[in-house]
Amino acid sequence: MRTSIATVSLSGSLTEKLTAASRAGFDGVEIFENDLLASPLTPEEIRARCADLGLTIDLYQPMRDIEAVPADEFARNLRRARHKFELMHRLGADTVLVCSSVSPLAVDDDALAAEQLHQLADLAQDFGIRVAYEALAWGRHVSTYDHAWRIVETAAHPTLGTCLDSFHILSRGSDVKGIEDIPGEKIFFLQLADAPLLAMDVLQWSRHYRCFPGQGGFDVAGLVRHVLRTGYAGPLSLEVFNDVFRQAEAGPTAVDAHRSLLVLQEAVGAAALPRPVVPTGVAFAELVTPDTEPVSALLTALGFARTARHRTKPVDLWQQGEARILVNTGPSVPRGGTQLAAIGLQSPDPAAAAERAEALLAPVLPRRRAPEDAPLDAVAAPDGTELFFCGSDRWRTDFEHLAHTPAATDVHRIDHLALTQPWHHFDEATLFHRSVLGLHPQESVDVADPYGLLRSRAVTNADGSVRIALTVGAAPTDDTVRAQHIALATDDVIAAARRFREAGGHLLPVPANYHDDLAARYDLTDEELKTYRDLGILYDRDAYGVFRHCYTQTVGRVFFELVQRDDGYRGYGAQNAPVRLAAQHAMKAVTGG
Amino acid sequence: MRTSIATVSLSGSLTEKLTAASRAGFDGVEIFENDLLASPLTPEEIRARCADLGLTIDLYQPMRDIEAVPADEFARNLRRARHKFELMHRLGADTVLVCSSVSPLAVDDDALAAEQLHQLADLAQDFGIRVAYEALAWGRHVSTYDHAWRIVETAAHPTLGTCLDSFHILSRGSDVKGIEDIPGEKIFFLQLADAPLLAMDVLQWSRHYRCFPGQGGFDVAGLVRHVLRTGYAGPLSLEVFNDVFRQAEAGPTAVDAHRSLLVLQEAVGAAALPRPVVPTGVAFAELVTPDTEPVSALLTALGFARTARHRTKPVDLWQQGEARILVNTGPSVPRGGTQLAAIGLQSPDPAAAAERAEALLAPVLPRRRAPEDAPLDAVAAPDGTELFFCGSDRWRTDFEHLAHTPAATDVHRIDHLALTQPWHHFDEATLFHRSVLGLHPQESVDVADPYGLLRSRAVTNADGSVRIALTVGAAPTDDTVRAQHIALATDDVIAAARRFREAGGHLLPVPANYHDDLAARYDLTDEELKTYRDLGILYDRDAYGVFRHCYTQTVGRVFFELVQRDDGYRGYGAQNAPVRLAAQHAMKAVTGG
Repeated sequence: MRTSIATVSLSGSLTEKLTAASRAGFDGVEIFENDLLASPLTPEEIRARCADLGLTIDLYQPMRDIEAVPADEFARNLRRARHKFELMHRLGADTVLVCSSVSPLAVDDDALAAEQLHQLADLAQDFGIRVAYEALAWGRHVSTYDHAWRIVETAAHPTLGTCLDSFHILSRGSDVKGIEDIPGEKIFFLQLADAPLLAMDVLQWSRHYRCFPGQGGFDVAGLVRHVLRTGYAGPLSLEVFNDVFRQAEAGPTAVDAHRSLLVLQEAVGAAALPRPVVPTGVAFAELVTPDTEPVSALLTALGFARTARHRTKPVDLWQQGEARILVNTGPSVPRGGTQLAAIGLQSPDPAAAAERAEALLAPVLPRRRAPEDAPLDAVAAPDGTELFFCGSDRWRTDFEHLAHTPAATDVHRIDHLALTQPWHHFDEATLFHRSVLGLHPQESVDVADPYGLLRSRAVTNADGSVRIALTVGAAPTDDTVRAQHIALATDDVIAAARRFREAGGHLLPVPANYHDDLAARYDLTDEELKTYRDLGILYDRDAYGVFRHCYTQTVGRVFFELVQRDDGYRGYGAQNAPVRLAAQHAMKAVTGG
Repeated sequence: MRTSIATVSLSGSLTEKLTAASRAGFDGVEIFENDLLASPLTPEEIRARCADLGLTIDLYQPMRDIEAVPADEFARNLRRARHKFELMHRLGADTVLVCSSVSPLAVDDDALAAEQLHQLADLAQDFGIRVAYEALAWGRHVSTYDHAWRIVETAAHPTLGTCLDSFHILSRGSDVKGIEDIPGEKIFFLQLADAPLLAMDVLQWSRHYRCFPGQGGFDVAGLVRHVLRTGYAGPLSLEVFNDVFRQAEAGPTAVDAHRSLLVLQEAVGAAALPRPVVPTGVAFAELVTPDTEPVSALLTALGFARTARHRTKPVDLWQQGEARILVNTGPSVPRGGTQLAAIGLQSPDPAAAAERAEALLAPVLPRRRAPEDAPLDAVAAPDGTELFFCGSDRWRTDFEHLAHTPAATDVHRIDHLALTQPWHHFDEATLFHRSVLGLHPQESVDVADPYGLLRSRAVTNADGSVRIALTVGAAPTDDTVRAQHIALATDDVIAAARRFREAGGHLLPVPANYHDDLAARYDLTDEELKTYRDLGILYDRDAYGVFRHCYTQTVGRVFFELVQRDDGYRGYGAQNAPVRLAAQHAMKAVTGG
């Protein structure tokens, strides 16, 4: 199907928006009136720019407060409409959106509304323009799609049809089955937006919190299925008002937007994408660092050994059990020092995984390899983290084995990876990991950092062998360099923590008050508590089991966590995160780090 | 009355919060459990720190899900409570907050709730602790203050009382008159928070959008009056959960918080402050600049003349009609170049105005003057703008008259000043201008900038001779250097614009599409429209009259606007702001400014 996006959904000048929409692969745009008014380009120049960019102008919007008004007011409205039709003619746009009136002058009279819309359509016809009438959820007298359709049906004019908008329909909880009663050729346009399920004033909700399909809580796909059954043949068009997108760079937002429509088309059977290939484990995590010394010291204290080195690149493989960490001194490292740059995902079919990622607009990375290296398919996640799809252990043949063996066997694999997302792109990250990698998003949780609230959401595969925790600040701060971390699974966190400390490692100190509170909340033995206190081990329980964990100091932007999950505990110790964050801030205040 | 603030209302570590509260003048704090758990200080050390800072610990909070539960659960709760009472004993806190239960285990049985709270109070009594029971607005069975009070009354225990919280009471729209039925000595604590009037889920509303009294839409003063009539003698304590405050620096937030309680006490007659002295006009606006050349050229083209210079400082006075602009090359200028640094307000009683400002915690500025200069009382607004209170024209005696006369008489006074506020401090700015200066806040409006939404709110005196428009981004951006502006009132904007252009000035270009739209919206003559097009004049109407305005180019961070208000137009042309902002961004993109 053709895809389109309203210019109001993107940030920047009109030409920036058009460029971003075109680059992301949209076929057309809805031009929002305010974007045109503020543009120095004439309508003819905008038309030419769109043509150059391969974009059609699918809708001009909106016209407001047109119908069901007194005759003198309607005469003024027709005069205004003529101006706009002339403009649209210059623009080469053939469909205009008319929103149901919110004017205090409007009367509750469907017959009058139909008659006046008929007159408007007559005028539009002279300009070769179609009028798409849409019910705003907060329309004064017309606020549901079926009511708008009844008026259109009554008006019975060939150039008058209806526009359906998923936000207006789903925010009111309307029954979407009724959509199938509308003949497809009378649905002139379909606007799509999702939204988080918030109980708030619908106008505010609509103006500030819409998001792309699949990022919110609405069943947009369900609605689209009903629309498609009518025979609707117009574009799927995104109209998203969102305070965050207004600020974000237009290019990535447009890509995110277009991806959401591809996923939606797959969901409704309107497009076939390469099937999802869910990763089955974490092959490795790759750190880039300007200085191997502190990372090596930390990994050594954790019981890892440098077991191999890459034949052609400055990359070492550190290993313990099935946990593998690559330490790469090749690329230049951005500010903040050592960081988690790449993740290797075990994949049953790497080529297919990469193919799906590419189809879903993930940037495919050049294979930085020597001719003899094993090919590795890789794409970039929205936060810039590189994701490698590893089909077998063949990638390890690029590494030359060293004689070292790990000093310990406490750690058996990577439990999870925690990635701080750039502000503006949190919902995008979730949709990416869900649609591209086929991971399941868990509930989003709020975490109080001493200097601001964080939101955190994990994405996992079915057996929990791949877990990625995505975190973002509730608002951007200057503290853009937040830490990422690698959590290592152990069956005995106490032994692992002791060993780490004996090997010279420093665990993050945990305040005594925290452990006093544990004593109040749980029936732990004195000995157990004393051990947790001594080592700085944190404790959590959920409906399934128990979680015990502790943290290393931070190197650059990265730190490690040792975690022990017992009896099927499913969480990530989010309850303890504020204590960890406060301790990390306190360390920074002391070390100036 | 004593004032207190919950540590959760401020950003930072516990000790940062305590320091900020003390410096802002609070008498005490409520210690929020999570802040204590994350602190490396022992309870005894926290107690000592508070004592050093002159702060009492008025409340420890919260205890949750205590009452109306099965016996075995209640036994566990008592065990937990004992731990917390021991902690409070170490902390020297004698009142604990118990929130009504949200637990799925809680049953709808007031008698059981009363009996268990009685037992809890018995235990608390052994530690010299009072229990304050509060209804959460989303409590499972107890969600209103009168219900919580009935349970407390039934329990009839000397160390059990109730805690009233303005958010929980006012968010439910409860009738506050009933508060007077509670004996004052049984109101153990009073927590205050305001909130904007949002129709949204009450838990989300409470957790993220609370603000300080006078910053939101609740009648907090009305509630407090009822509480005081009961004989309540405890502190007024702020408990504000707000995503913005969590990020903002604790120091200014604490000052803002304390100011809100001072204003509240004045409103309820519990404290006498120096009376407000409303300014009666704008004496001058002062620009600081590293380079007088571009500013002088701009002022000259606008028809201003340099009519005087300061006897002892590098400050020139430029004048036209009653519009006076000081150009100061003395202070060092922060990044962004020329900026609006100070406003001179005509005041019927400058000393009293300054006295009130100081009583309301506005920083009083040192009088930077030579011994022979006229004294000028000045304070700093939250955004750093200096506000001078000018009693007469005596300040002009510091200036030596020059022989120049203004080239024009188009401009007769300063219509308004527009100040961009730092993110985090928008509500603070409004409360400051209202309470310190006695100005009236107008409705807040959203303005779409191409790169993000802005919020704008004007504060004015009764006759409109002082108007200040406060603007803030809906979220912080990198573009922290947004422009401020000075709007100059004229009776003939067309003549003024023509003169400016003839004098070599550059008006901001306005897209032709904007004027095409004017033609569609209003019945303007072709000649009128042509004039607006030629000059770049924007047009707006409200219920009262007509507004025509145009903009100069920007110098540093400052630009000028020429405005003509006819027939009592009250607004600021907010409708046209997106067009202006887009044009300014386009200019910057061209000039690289």
